[in-house]
Amino acid sequence: MVIRKVETGISGLDAMLRGGFPGGRIILVTGGPGTGKTIFCSQFLHYGATKQDEKIVYISLDESKSHFLEEMLAFGWDFKKLEEAQKFTFIDASDVRRIPEEAKVGKLQVGGKELARERLIDSIFTTFDESRAIDRFIGDLGAQRIVLDSISGLLFRFPEAAEKRQAILDIYEALERVGATCLITSEAMSIGEERQVQPEEYLSHGAVLLQTLGTGERAVRILKMRGTEVDSVPRPYQIGHTGVEVYSDQSIYQT
Amino acid sequence: MVIRKVETGISGLDAMLRGGFPGGRIILVTGGPGTGKTIFCSQFLHYGATKQDEKIVYISLDESKSHFLEEMLAFGWDFKKLEEAQKFTFIDASDVRRIPEEAKVGKLQVGGKELARERLIDSIFTTFDESRAIDRFIGDLGAQRIVLDSISGLLFRFPEAAEKRQAILDIYEALERVGATCLITSEAMSIGEERQVQPEEYLSHGAVLLQTLGTGERAVRILKMRGTEVDSVPRPYQIGHTGVEVYSDQSIYQT
Amino acid sequence: MVIRKVETGISGLDAMLRGGFPGGRIILVTGGPGTGKTIFCSQFLHYGATKQDEKIVYISLDESKSHFLEEMLAFGWDFKKLEEAQKFTFIDASDVRRIPEEAKVGKLQVGGKELARERLIDSIFTTFDESRAIDRFIGDLGAQRIVLDSISGLLFRFPEAAEKRQAILDIYEALERVGATCLITSEAMSIGEERQVQPEEYLSHGAVLLQTLGTGERAVRILKMRGTEVDSVPRPYQIGHTGVEVYSDQSIYQT
Amino acid sequence: MVIRKVETGISGLDAMLRGGFPGGRIILVTGGPGTGKTIFCSQFLHYGATKQDEKIVYISLDESKSHFLEEMLAFGWDFKKLEEAQKFTFIDASDVRRIPEEAKVGKLQVGGKELARERLIDSIFTTFDESRAIDRFIGDLGAQRIVLDSISGLLFRFPEAAEKRQAILDIYEALERVGATCLITSEAMSIGEERQVQPEEYLSHGAVLLQTLGTGERAVRILKMRGTEVDSVPRPYQIGHTGVEVYSDQSIYQT
Amino acid sequence: MVIRKVETGISGLDAMLRGGFPGGRIILVTGGPGTGKTIFCSQFLHYGATKQDEKIVYISLDESKSHFLEEMLAFGWDFKKLEEAQKFTFIDASDVRRIPEEAKVGKLQVGGKELARERLIDSIFTTFDESRAIDRFIGDLGAQRIVLDSISGLLFRFPEAAEKRQAILDIYEALERVGATCLITSEAMSIGEERQVQPEEYLSHGAVLLQTLGTGERAVRILKMRGTEVDSVPRPYQIGHTGVEVYSDQSIYQT
Amino acid sequence: MVIRKVETGISGLDAMLRGGFPGGRIILVTGGPGTGKTIFCSQFLHYGATKQDEKIVYISLDESKSHFLEEMLAFGWDFKKLEEAQKFTFIDASDVRRIPEEAKVGKLQVGGKELARERLIDSIFTTFDESRAIDRFIGDLGAQRIVLDSISGLLFRFPEAAEKRQAILDIYEALERVGATCLITSEAMSIGEERQVQPEEYLSHGAVLLQTLGTGERAVRILKMRGTEVDSVPRPYQIGHTGVEVYSDQSIYQT
Repeated sequence: MVIRKVETGISGLDAMLRGGFPGGRIILVTGGPGTGKTIFCSQFLHYGATKQDEKIVYISLDESKSHFLEEMLAFGWDFKKLEEAQKFTFIDASDVRRIPEEAKVGKLQVGGKELARERLIDSIFTTFDESRAIDRFIGDLGAQRIVLDSISGLLFRFPEAAEKRQAILDIYEALERVGATCLITSEAMSIGEERQVQPEEYLSHGAVLLQTLGTGERAVRILKMRGTEVDSVPRPYQIGHTGVEVYSDQSIYQT
Repeated sequence: MVIRKVETGISGLDAMLRGGFPGGRIILVTGGPGTGKTIFCSQFLHYGATKQDEKIVYISLDESKSHFLEEMLAFGWDFKKLEEAQKFTFIDASDVRRIPEEAKVGKLQVGGKELARERLIDSIFTTFDESRAIDRFIGDLGAQRIVLDSISGLLFRFPEAAEKRQAILDIYEALERVGATCLITSEAMSIGEERQVQPEEYLSHGAVLLQTLGTGERAVRILKMRGTEVDSVPRPYQIGHTGVEVYSDQSIYQT
Repeated sequence: MVIRKVETGISGLDAMLRGGFPGGRIILVTGGPGTGKTIFCSQFLHYGATKQDEKIVYISLDESKSHFLEEMLAFGWDFKKLEEAQKFTFIDASDVRRIPEEAKVGKLQVGGKELARERLIDSIFTTFDESRAIDRFIGDLGAQRIVLDSISGLLFRFPEAAEKRQAILDIYEALERVGATCLITSEAMSIGEERQVQPEEYLSHGAVLLQTLGTGERAVRILKMRGTEVDSVPRPYQIGHTGVEVYSDQSIYQT
Repeated sequence: MVIRKVETGISGLDAMLRGGFPGGRIILVTGGPGTGKTIFCSQFLHYGATKQDEKIVYISLDESKSHFLEEMLAFGWDFKKLEEAQKFTFIDASDVRRIPEEAKVGKLQVGGKELARERLIDSIFTTFDESRAIDRFIGDLGAQRIVLDSISGLLFRFPEAAEKRQAILDIYEALERVGATCLITSEAMSIGEERQVQPEEYLSHGAVLLQTLGTGERAVRILKMRGTEVDSVPRPYQIGHTGVEVYSDQSIYQT
Repeated sequence: MVIRKVETGISGLDAMLRGGFPGGRIILVTGGPGTGKTIFCSQFLHYGATKQDEKIVYISLDESKSHFLEEMLAFGWDFKKLEEAQKFTFIDASDVRRIPEEAKVGKLQVGGKELARERLIDSIFTTFDESRAIDRFIGDLGAQRIVLDSISGLLFRFPEAAEKRQAILDIYEALERVGATCLITSEAMSIGEERQVQPEEYLSHGAVLLQTLGTGERAVRILKMRGTEVDSVPRPYQIGHTGVEVYSDQSIYQT
Repeated sequence: MVIRKVETGISGLDAMLRGGFPGGRIILVTGGPGTGKTIFCSQFLHYGATKQDEKIVYISLDESKSHFLEEMLAFGWDFKKLEEAQKFTFIDASDVRRIPEEAKVGKLQVGGKELARERLIDSIFTTFDESRAIDRFIGDLGAQRIVLDSISGLLFRFPEAAEKRQAILDIYEALERVGATCLITSEAMSIGEERQVQPEEYLSHGAVLLQTLGTGERAVRILKMRGTEVDSVPRPYQIGHTGVEVYSDQSIYQT
C-alpha cells in the first residue's frame, strides 16, 4: 500500500514533495500577509480541474466571489469558465463570521459536539445550498480538491487554546470525511526566527510555510508531510503572471 | 478582464506597483510614528483631484481640519482650494471616539450586525451631513479616492481579537460598497524584525509598510497586493517639500 | 545494580544514549511540527516487536488507525501484520478530546485525585476494551514498549500551570505502574534559541529534542536522561525511506 | 500659510528641526530613565522666557517645586528669578495622583466626557489656583510655552488601552485649546531595538526620542514632526553644565 | 567572625567558591532540564556523609526513592548503604502535590501564616514520620546537609507573584531554622540570554546556574553567594561516571 | 545654590558621580541577583559612619540581622561595633511581608491614602520601636544615610501597575521627609539588552544599575542622577575583600 500523490501544478513544488501532496489528506498553507497563500491554493485547484479533469471547491471566508474571479483571471485562470463547465464550485462562507455570539457559549454534551462548533461547521457546508447537506452535495459533485481560505477567520472566535484546538479538529474531521485532498490556509500571527507555532500546524497531515524575507525574497518550506519523504530545505519562489514558481534546485542561502 | 490600476502620484511607487493601486480596493498603509502615513495618503488624494479630475474624501479620526489643511499646504497641496472647487470633502469623524461605552456591550443579533459596530460605522458616515446617508452622499459626490486616517483610533475600542476582526470587516465592507479606491492607515504596535502581524493586514486587499530604520533611513515595502504582480523588495523613500519620493531602483541594502 | 538499557532501533541514537533508553522509564520526545516525532516513536516500537520479540502499544490522540498504518508502511513497517501476530495494539484515544468540560471543574478530594484528571486517564486506558481495566489489559499483554502520541492533545485542557503539572504527573504515574519503557511526544510551543521550557520536560526521566533548523537541516539533542551518561551534543539526523537515521559522529556545527 | 517655528534654545536641535518646533502644537519627549527629558524641556522653557520674552508654565506630576528649582539652577537657569518676574509659573499637580479610585469607574455619558478623566484634567489645571479656571488663568498669563512632566504619571491610572487612548486625547485637547507650544514627557516602558510603540507617540503632532545607548553614548532622534520636514537621523547629544547639546552634524554610527 | 565554608565534594567547584558553600545557608541550584541539578546536589550530600561523617537528608518532590537510589548508584554513590548506616534519610514529599486545592484559598491571619502554606511546609516535614515534628526529627538526626529537589514542584501551586514570594520565604525560613547547609533546586522557565529572573534567586543566600549551551557544552556559573568572594566567570563542567566535574581554570569562551 | 554631594566611599564611583550622590535624595540601586546591591549600599553606610561621623540606618526586608552582621564583617565592616557606638540602627522590617491580605483590598478615601499602603509604610517605620513614630525616631537619631533593602519585597504586594506606582511614591515621600540621603535596592525582573524599565527607576532622583555580564565581568552604570552631571558610560567593577571597587577610567568595551 503506497500513499497516492496528487500533483500540485506548482512548478518545482512537486519535486520538493517527491510527486505531490498525499491524496485525501489535509495540508496547511501558512504564511504572513502577501505571501501568496490564496494564489498557491487556487493554482492547485485550477491544475486539478484543467489537467486532471477533477471537480474542485473553493470555500471562501474573507474574499468575495467577484474579487476572487477577477484576481485569478490575472494569472490566466478562468474559474468562471470552469464553473460554467460544472467543474468548479465557489462556496461563499463569509456569513459564518456573523453567527451569533450566544451560540458560542453553549453547553458541551457528553460524547457529543459543542453546539457552537457544530453550527459553525454546518453553516460552512450549508451556505451553498440550504436544501442539501454538504455530504450529499460533495457526493453529487465528487470534489477531489478542496480549499478552505482561511481557517484563521474561524479560529478568532475561539480565544481559549483548548476551544481553538477542538474547533480545528472538528473542521479537519468534517473535511476528511469528504475524502478530497484539502488545502487550508492560515495566517501566521508572528513573523521571524522566534515564531510561535500555531496549533493547526500540529493537527494537519502536512504544512507548507510561505515567507517573504526582509530583503523581499520569497521562500517556501515544507514544515511537515506525514507519510512521505520530502525536501525540508527552504527554496526560493516567485509570484509571476502564471502564478507561483518554486526553484527547487536553488537554496535561499546560496542565491 | 484586467484589474484597473489607479496611479498614486507618488514618484517611484507606481513603478513598484506596476502602474498603481488596484482600483476599487482597500489598501492598508501601516507604519510606526513619523513614517509619513498621512502625507502618503494625502498625496494620493491630491494627485487624483488635480491630475485625474477625481472627487476625493479624507475621513479624519485624530487630526483636526485646520491642522490638516495647514500641514498639507507645507507640501504645496492646497486642499482648501480643492474644497472650494467641490472636489475635496473633509469628514471630521473624531466624535466617534466619544460614542458611549454602553453601546459596545450590546447584544449581537443573528445574521445582523453588532449594535455598537453598526453605530460606529454609521457615525463615521453621518458625521459630515446628518440629513443624508453616506451612500447617498457618496453617490452625489462620486468620490473615487477615499482615505480613512486611522483605523487604529477605532480598533482600540475592541480589545478582544474576535471583536476587532469583526469591526475591521464591517468597516471594509462599508467602504467597499462605495466603490472608490480606499487607503486606510494603521499604527504599527511593535517595530523591528520580530513584529507581530496585525489583523487588518490580512483583511485588506493590499498593504504597504512604511518604516524608519535605526539609522534614520526610510524604507517602503509592499507587503501584499491582491490581483497584481508587484515589487516586494523594500525600497528607500524620503519625505521632502513635495511629499513622498520613492527610489524604486535602489535597494535599502545596497545604498 | 545497573540500569537496564533498551535499544531504540534508531541508527546512531543508541551510540548517543550509550546503549539505549533506560528501561521502564518515561522519555519525552519533543519538537516542532514535521520533525518526525511519530516516526521516531514508531521506529522504536517496531524494533522492539520485530527484533526483540516484545509486545508494543501505540496510544493515539490525534491520528486515526488507518492513517497510522498507511504512513508507517511507507517506511516498510507493517504494523498490521504485527497486530495480527498479537504483538501490536493500537489504542485510539481520540475520544478523550471530547470528554465533557463539566468534569474538568470537579472538586478535589483530600489525598485523592481530581475527578476530571482521573476520568481522563481512565478513559485513555479503557478506550480499547471497556470490559477490562488497563492494568489487567497490560498485564495480559505484557507490553514492554508504549508510545503516547501526543501528550499536548491532553494538556491543552488544563490552561493553568498547576493543573497542567498535576495532569502530567498523573499520566506519568499511570504509565509508570505498567513497567514498560514509554515514549511520550510533546509539541514544542515556541521554536528558536530563546525557547520556553515546558513542564513535561522537567517531569520526565529523559527528554529528546528534535529540531528542523532554518536551513532545513535536522538536529537531535538529548536534553536529559536520568541515571545514565549520554552525549549532549546536537547531532544531525535525516528521515529517509527506512525511518530516522542519526549521524552520531557528526556535529551540526561542522557539517 | 507657513507653520510658525518656535526656537528650542537647544544647540543643534533647531538645525535638526529646520528652525524649531511647530508653534501651538503638542510635542512628545519620550525616553528611558536618565535621558534628560526634564532638562530638555526646562531648557526649552528657559530659552523662551529669557531670549524671547515669553510666559512659560511647568506642570509637574512627580517632582517637587524646590527640587526642580535646585536642579535647574545647576545648569545656570534661575527659574526662581523668572517666577518673581512673573514670567514663570510652576504648577504642582502631584495631588492628581491621589484622586480617588472610585471616580475612575464612573459612567460615560453620550457625547460628553468620562467623569474621572474630566476631573483629572480639571484637577491639573485648578491645582494652581482653585478660584480660577485654567482657561482664564492661561488667558491672564498668556503662556506661550507649556511643559507637562510626565504624562506617564497620569496614564498609569488607565490600564486598558481604550481608556488610556481616550485620556491622552482629553489631555491633548485641553492643552491645545490654550494655544501654546507644549512639550509632554513620557516614560519609555521598554528599551532596545524591538521596543513597543506607546499610543501617545501616535496622537502627538511631534515626538522626540532620547536614548542612552549601551555604551553610555546618548542619541536624540526626531520620530515625527507633522507639517515640517526634519532630520530623521539619530544624532549624538550630551548633558553638560549648560544643559543639552545636540551634535546635529555628527552621526552616532560614525563617531 | 568568619563564615564557615562547607566543602562541596564537586571537583573544581570549591575553587570557584573559595573553599565551599557558606555553612548553614540556603543555596539555590537552578538550570534547564538535563543540566544535572539532582546529580549536583546528591554529590554534595554524598560527600558530606562519606568524607565528613555528616548526617544528610534528601527531600524529594518529583522522584521516587527507588529511582533515586538506582540513578545515584550509577555514579558509584550507594545511598542505600548510607541509609542503613543511619547517615542518610530520604523524605518522599511527593504527596504534597496532592494537598487539596481548597486549602490554598484559606484566609491569612494577621501576624500568622497563610493556612495553605503552613500546611504545605508541615506536610513536607511530617511526611517522613507522622508522629514526630520535623524540628525534633532534625534535632534527633543532626542533619548537616539537606537537599530539597525541587522547589518548583511547590511553587506551581502559587500562580500569583505575591503568594509565590511568600511561599518561598516560608520554605526558606523553615529550612533555615534547622541550621543545616541547604541546596534547593529550581527549574529555569526560560533559557537563553534574555532570561527572566525567578524570585527564588533573589531570596536565597546563594545561587548557582547550570546551563547546557547550544553546542551541547555545559557551563556552571555562580550567580550570587552572600558573605563570600567567589569566581563569577562561567566555567565548563561535565557529567561523567563519577558525577559532576568543574574545570575552574577554563573559560567557556576560550575552549 | 549648589546641590550638596555625599561621598559614597566606593572607590571610583565618586569620580563617576563628580563627587558623590546628591544629598537628601532617593537613589535606586538596581540589578540582577548576585550583583552586590547589598554590599554596595552597606559600604555607603559604613563610610558615612566611620569617615564622616554620620548616623546610619539599614532597613531590611529580606535579610536577618545576624546574617547581615556576619556577611558585612567579611568585608571588614563591623556594624556591631557601630551599633554599640549608637551610630548604626538595624530595622528588621521583615514582618511587613506578613501584613494581612485583607488590608490590601481596603477602600480608598478621597484625598487620603489607601489603607493598606498607609499601614505598610507605618509598619516599616514602627517595627523598630512601637512606642515611637518614625519621624520622632529619626529626629532623635539624626540619621543622615538610610538604606532600604529591597523595595521589591514590598512591591510584589501590588500587582497592578497603578497601585505599584502609588506605593513607590508613598515610600519615597515617607523617606524624603526624613531628609537623609537614601539608597533603595530593587530587583531587576529581566536581564539583557531588551530589558523592561521598572517604574521605581523613573520615580527616584537617581538610579544606578549593577550588572554581571555573560562573561562574568561586572559593570556599573549610572542610569540617571537628577541635578548633577555624571559619567553615563558603563564601567567595570569588582567585589573584593574590601567591598566594591569601580574602575572609573576603564570601559567594559575596551578591557
